[in-house]
Amino acid sequence: MKFELSKYYIQDISEKLERKDFKILKAELSELHHADIAELIEELDDEEGKLLFELFEDEDSAEILIELDDENREVVLEDLTSQEIAEMLIENLDSDDAADIIADLPSYKKEEVLAHIEDIDHASDIVDLLSYPENTAGGLMAKELIHVNDKWSILRCVSEMRKQAEDVDKVYTIYVVDDNRILLGTLSLKKLLLSPEKNLIKNIYNEKVISVKANFDDEEVANIMDKYDLIVLPVVDDLNRLIGRITIDDVVDVMKEEAMEDYNKASGISEQVDSSDNIVTLTRARLPWLLIGLMGGIMGAQVMGIFDIANNIELAFFTPLIAAMGGNVGVQSAAIIVQGLASNSLGMDTLGERLFKELGVAMLNGVICSAIIMLITFLLGYPSAIYFTVSISIMAVIIFAALFGTFVPLALNKYKIDPALATGPFITTVNDVLGLFIYFMIGKLFLDL
Amino acid sequence: MKFELSKYYIQDISEKLERKDFKILKAELSELHHADIAELIEELDDEEGKLLFELFEDEDSAEILIELDDENREVVLEDLTSQEIAEMLIENLDSDDAADIIADLPSYKKEEVLAHIEDIDHASDIVDLLSYPENTAGGLMAKELIHVNDKWSILRCVSEMRKQAEDVDKVYTIYVVDDNRILLGTLSLKKLLLSPEKNLIKNIYNEKVISVKANFDDEEVANIMDKYDLIVLPVVDDLNRLIGRITIDDVVDVMKEEAMEDYNKASGISEQVDSSDNIVTLTRARLPWLLIGLMGGIMGAQVMGIFDIANNIELAFFTPLIAAMGGNVGVQSAAIIVQGLASNSLGMDTLGERLFKELGVAMLNGVICSAIIMLITFLLGYPSAIYFTVSISIMAVIIFAALFGTFVPLALNKYKIDPALATGPFITTVNDVLGLFIYFMIGKLFLDL
Repeated sequence: MKFELSKYYIQDISEKLERKDFKILKAELSELHHADIAELIEELDDEEGKLLFELFEDEDSAEILIELDDENREVVLEDLTSQEIAEMLIENLDSDDAADIIADLPSYKKEEVLAHIEDIDHASDIVDLLSYPENTAGGLMAKELIHVNDKWSILRCVSEMRKQAEDVDKVYTIYVVDDNRILLGTLSLKKLLLSPEKNLIKNIYNEKVISVKANFDDEEVANIMDKYDLIVLPVVDDLNRLIGRITIDDVVDVMKEEAMEDYNKASGISEQVDSSDNIVTLTRARLPWLLIGLMGGIMGAQVMGIFDIANNIELAFFTPLIAAMGGNVGVQSAAIIVQGLASNSLGMDTLGERLFKELGVAMLNGVICSAIIMLITFLLGYPSAIYFTVSISIMAVIIFAALFGTFVPLALNKYKIDPALATGPFITTVNDVLGLFIYFMIGKLFLDL
Repeated sequence: MKFELSKYYIQDISEKLERKDFKILKAELSELHHADIAELIEELDDEEGKLLFELFEDEDSAEILIELDDENREVVLEDLTSQEIAEMLIENLDSDDAADIIADLPSYKKEEVLAHIEDIDHASDIVDLLSYPENTAGGLMAKELIHVNDKWSILRCVSEMRKQAEDVDKVYTIYVVDDNRILLGTLSLKKLLLSPEKNLIKNIYNEKVISVKANFDDEEVANIMDKYDLIVLPVVDDLNRLIGRITIDDVVDVMKEEAMEDYNKASGISEQVDSSDNIVTLTRARLPWLLIGLMGGIMGAQVMGIFDIANNIELAFFTPLIAAMGGNVGVQSAAIIVQGLASNSLGMDTLGERLFKELGVAMLNGVICSAIIMLITFLLGYPSAIYFTVSISIMAVIIFAALFGTFVPLALNKYKIDPALATGPFITTVNDVLGLFIYFMIGKLFLDL
């Protein structure tokens, strides 16, 4: 039941491919789930992957195709004619998956493939879907759904559902619409099973239905489905007419991408990368943040150059500590805000209330860290001017960085800029440099700088 | 359709509560979704929240209860007797939600509530579920499901389903079992709708069914549901007998928590906190990482004390830069590995291959950063010994931190320790200190340290 890829298994498959043991392979692989076969193709080299993909037909190959990652999908598609893509693959896919595949094709091929789809309704559904931007409710939805008229009886409803079900892969909910296809509500399968056959739909359907418009942002769709624990969400046009439905599996991908993007930003990685990407892509994703750090470091060096630290060399020993504390506290503060914004859990507090609370946290952390550093530097035998400077600076830097780290993501969010940027090296670097400046200014009070 | 909380709206509700306009309130709020009412209760103060909660009855109050966060749930439950909890709330909940509520009760109340549940099957389902640890498939599953025997005809199947559907809130899938309740497969609603009534289930059900055992880890369950795009997943015992089902909405919460935990670790926050937590909780979550940073800073100061930098004061100017670069590169490298491990996308590469690739990325980043810093420090008029030391050190530190950042999470993972720890301040701090050491050792080649 559980499928594990091993080097040995891949080796075995690739030998069978080389020996052209296609029958044995096909029998063996037909036991697997499409997602597992896709994973296998991704691990084989391009030519072997193509061979393996070609073992399957129609629905199977269509299902495998949608599980493949972009790179491997391109590889298996490149040798197929537009007619093959249309007839073997697209005809066997739901409208949303079909639209995703077609959207990634080179534009000349796009039109060819669309022209080869025999089922004209399917083709028109796909063309419809292609018109919505990828990151909107319209871009996520599929056209296949079951809808019934509120004036029908249960009996008629079941017989109409039978007709519609041929085109629908999985039935999650039955939508109730009026004569103009305006969404009225939903009918649960349970009600359908439990009600007498002559009952009218309008007497038993549920009027409380949550829907979204096609132009809703995909993150908004994800938040709604998550908040209301929805498995499937109807999409309507501006006249409230039912035009499609979004299922949770597509939205899970949106949620994961969102979480990954925020994580990347907090880790100083600027684009969506994967450990399997090549060295140049990985470098390009990482270099920008390193360059920001580099500039910060140079600015830090210039700040230190302003002050006369040659006679107070021990002050220099603590510069990495001051810079690190500023950076760490700033990231912590910003991360809590970024998470709160992402999960809509910030509640009703105003900026002032939030900064005040952060001030409390910072003071508490600051007093503790400051006391510890004073004790340790005293025990290590540093002169009093040093341990006063270091411990007071730690306190000041923690408070400054906490307030700055709270303020920046809230301000970015207000101006519709992604607040997660505030957790990245940019703010860390600013905190580093300003922290150093605060440190030497405080040092000036005790020492001749 | 879209519900937005505003300060004004909350004010209005709280005034109506004070004036005891309960009828108006009830009519107004009955339009809202349970999740919205829960959100409203969370924003009101405790007493008002309780009053509002008590406006609702039976199913409504049960549904609102499960949407409340732990803190507010405790508040509304504390005034209710065990009998009220059992009869008003627990009886109206699915077994999984009921078990979650009961698990959080103080232990004396737990038994009382269980004793007051009138439906003995429901009580026994809940007791069953309470025996599974929270973070396992058993802890996530619900007992309510629809199962049919493979020997039945469609007609019998539909009539049996009607009986079972009374207890099942939402019907997602029909499970096919044999006489011993051993899971054989699933029956799609589509097949049920499209097949003639006399057909036998065994001729039309789908044998390819993915299931999990009750002791599977919740993260594993989340990965399986995500990979195979499942909405619902059956849970079986060691004899492969069907004992429950997990729905995707519960698993979405697991995925979100996982992503949040990793994010917290990368941001230096050590427990699950929320911006609404109190100052002490927030401080406790943040202090450990700050203390690690503090220790690192002190060690860094000691490292600098070893070398005679008083005569080469300009070298000290670049210590924050060196430390920051080591930290940033280490976090970037570790984050890519942590993500790869979390999404199972690391593929088949060995440790050696991965380190080799990382070496490539590090060399490319290192050469670029090193060239830039050399140019800038040259232009700023630093002596050649300084710009050689700084630029060579940057290169060395980037390479060291990248390899270290790649190695540590892989090693932690091998020994079943959470690899996300490697993105936190611990590794950053080690990188900082070792980076400084490397820097001064290189400086020794050019300068008299």
